[in-house]
Amino acid sequence: MKKTMDKELDHELQKRAALVTGAIERLLPVVHPLPLYEASRHLVDAGGKRLRPSMLLLAAEAAGGDAEAFAPAAVSIELIHNFTLIHDDIMDNADVRRGRAAVHKLWGQSGAILAGDTLYSKAFQVLGTTQARPELILGAMNMLSKTCTAICEGQWLDMEFESRPRVSESEYMEMIEKKTGVLYGASAGIGALLSGAAPQVVSALDEFGRLTGMGFQLQDDVIDLVTSEKVSGKRQGGDLIEAKKTLIMIHAFAHDVQVAVFGKKDATAEEIQESIAILEESGSIEYARSRAEEMVEKGKRALQVLPDSKAKGTLLELADYMVKRSY
Amino acid sequence: MKKTMDKELDHELQKRAALVTGAIERLLPVVHPLPLYEASRHLVDAGGKRLRPSMLLLAAEAAGGDAEAFAPAAVSIELIHNFTLIHDDIMDNADVRRGRAAVHKLWGQSGAILAGDTLYSKAFQVLGTTQARPELILGAMNMLSKTCTAICEGQWLDMEFESRPRVSESEYMEMIEKKTGVLYGASAGIGALLSGAAPQVVSALDEFGRLTGMGFQLQDDVIDLVTSEKVSGKRQGGDLIEAKKTLIMIHAFAHDVQVAVFGKKDATAEEIQESIAILEESGSIEYARSRAEEMVEKGKRALQVLPDSKAKGTLLELADYMVKRSY
Repeated sequence: MKKTMDKELDHELQKRAALVTGAIERLLPVVHPLPLYEASRHLVDAGGKRLRPSMLLLAAEAAGGDAEAFAPAAVSIELIHNFTLIHDDIMDNADVRRGRAAVHKLWGQSGAILAGDTLYSKAFQVLGTTQARPELILGAMNMLSKTCTAICEGQWLDMEFESRPRVSESEYMEMIEKKTGVLYGASAGIGALLSGAAPQVVSALDEFGRLTGMGFQLQDDVIDLVTSEKVSGKRQGGDLIEAKKTLIMIHAFAHDVQVAVFGKKDATAEEIQESIAILEESGSIEYARSRAEEMVEKGKRALQVLPDSKAKGTLLELADYMVKRSY
Repeated sequence: MKKTMDKELDHELQKRAALVTGAIERLLPVVHPLPLYEASRHLVDAGGKRLRPSMLLLAAEAAGGDAEAFAPAAVSIELIHNFTLIHDDIMDNADVRRGRAAVHKLWGQSGAILAGDTLYSKAFQVLGTTQARPELILGAMNMLSKTCTAICEGQWLDMEFESRPRVSESEYMEMIEKKTGVLYGASAGIGALLSGAAPQVVSALDEFGRLTGMGFQLQDDVIDLVTSEKVSGKRQGGDLIEAKKTLIMIHAFAHDVQVAVFGKKDATAEEIQESIAILEESGSIEYARSRAEEMVEKGKRALQVLPDSKAKGTLLELADYMVKRSY
């Protein structure tokens, strides 16, 4: 398993992340009323890998479009992603995000609701400034609004699952598809759409993004168990003691695997390691890992509609990275 | 002052409200996950007068458009309005809205954040289904997203004013323009835009909506003082004891009028009546009333760009109603 990102892939992503960061500076200026825009920018400015907007730019390029002209569309995806993080952190009462205090911890709950709402409308405003034919921009807006609705549904399901004793595999897959998959799908799909690609190419790119996005989320669940806090910055096994019903736990439940620390918030580090070892032995972690790889392979096959190009190669590498990363 | 709505105007508005309500049923179905959509529909289904979507339909008709085809656009305005109410009620910790328990009281704070977020994206989705040329729908979406950003700014200012000892008249006017005016402006403007009206007609309709919307808000402040709880369903002078810095109070401060119950939450009904009488004598209430009428007159003049028609006549009557209503 690759521990770090391939240098060439890293370089390609960083180039695009820099383009997106520059465009954010231009498209989301801090204006009156200042504190509202400071709150809106807080998390956006904390960075992150900008994988979604980079996927949009790569998909546009792979589909033969003028990727640089689509920087506003890439920014709109990043703003939507950040809006969901700000509102999710209120709902989960999370203290920290990207190493910074969560928005609601600094501007209060009302401030964070409004900062998220502002990013929401700004995303559509910014998308509207993309240089493309009106019907293509409209198509992108329709894709984005549909995606946002699905994200709300996904977050609702995620919250609902917390109060249920069991969740089925198909329910879990629906949740991660909506909560994580669809925004990656919209990223790749909008990139292709704005480039004037044929509907079946747009659908293929959407599928590529959606499936690799789901693989990304499944890998996140694996990372929670296999990566030490020193490397990930998050407590190893945190999902276990929080009683998260991940695909790993769904597999364990189905095979009567006894996971002693599930939902046990005061578990010791030793107890957590024992439970992780049991999940390795039972094949539950491997099950999630193999499902993640399956999804990414299926996503990669969807790219066969595109002619070979450097951007397509980078997309394929990005897809691999999404499930091979260890943190 | 008219106490009730003119019968003919009432009839015209009810016809359009019924069209909007029917379209909501079709465009915002209660689907999986059911509780999310039930929460999203809760306030929408409680009705209200549907003044904003009716204004959109009337503006479209007055601008020569096929208003019935624009029902989705009218619904999108109503969904945005309801989204703002749901989030505002969380921020204000309000218990009741339109005679129903507030959404966050029934579905919790997280449920209400998500219900609002869902209406937000649904509004754009629904607007995207309007039957019009792509560039017109795109223009409407750009107007709506810009409007939503302004509404967030207005709500931010409103909250910020609470923690300040004084607010100037121009600051107050900016706040109500953004919090209330712009959505009425977008309603009338989008109606004209979708009808293919010339840019100066769209601007004129936008101005009509914005100014009458501001008049509507100023009249709300007046109603708080002059209408008994029996008629309005709200405690008379509620804004006073809550220390709201309305235009009436801004006038009073500027003229050193002593309002004993300002910010005095335990004031008796008698004390409140005394303060109201003082604000009548000082001309503070009359000042807000006359500013409201001025704005509506200015808004009505903007309609001079349109040829006379039944719909234009109804818009002019609606404008009068917005500042002549007593509850």
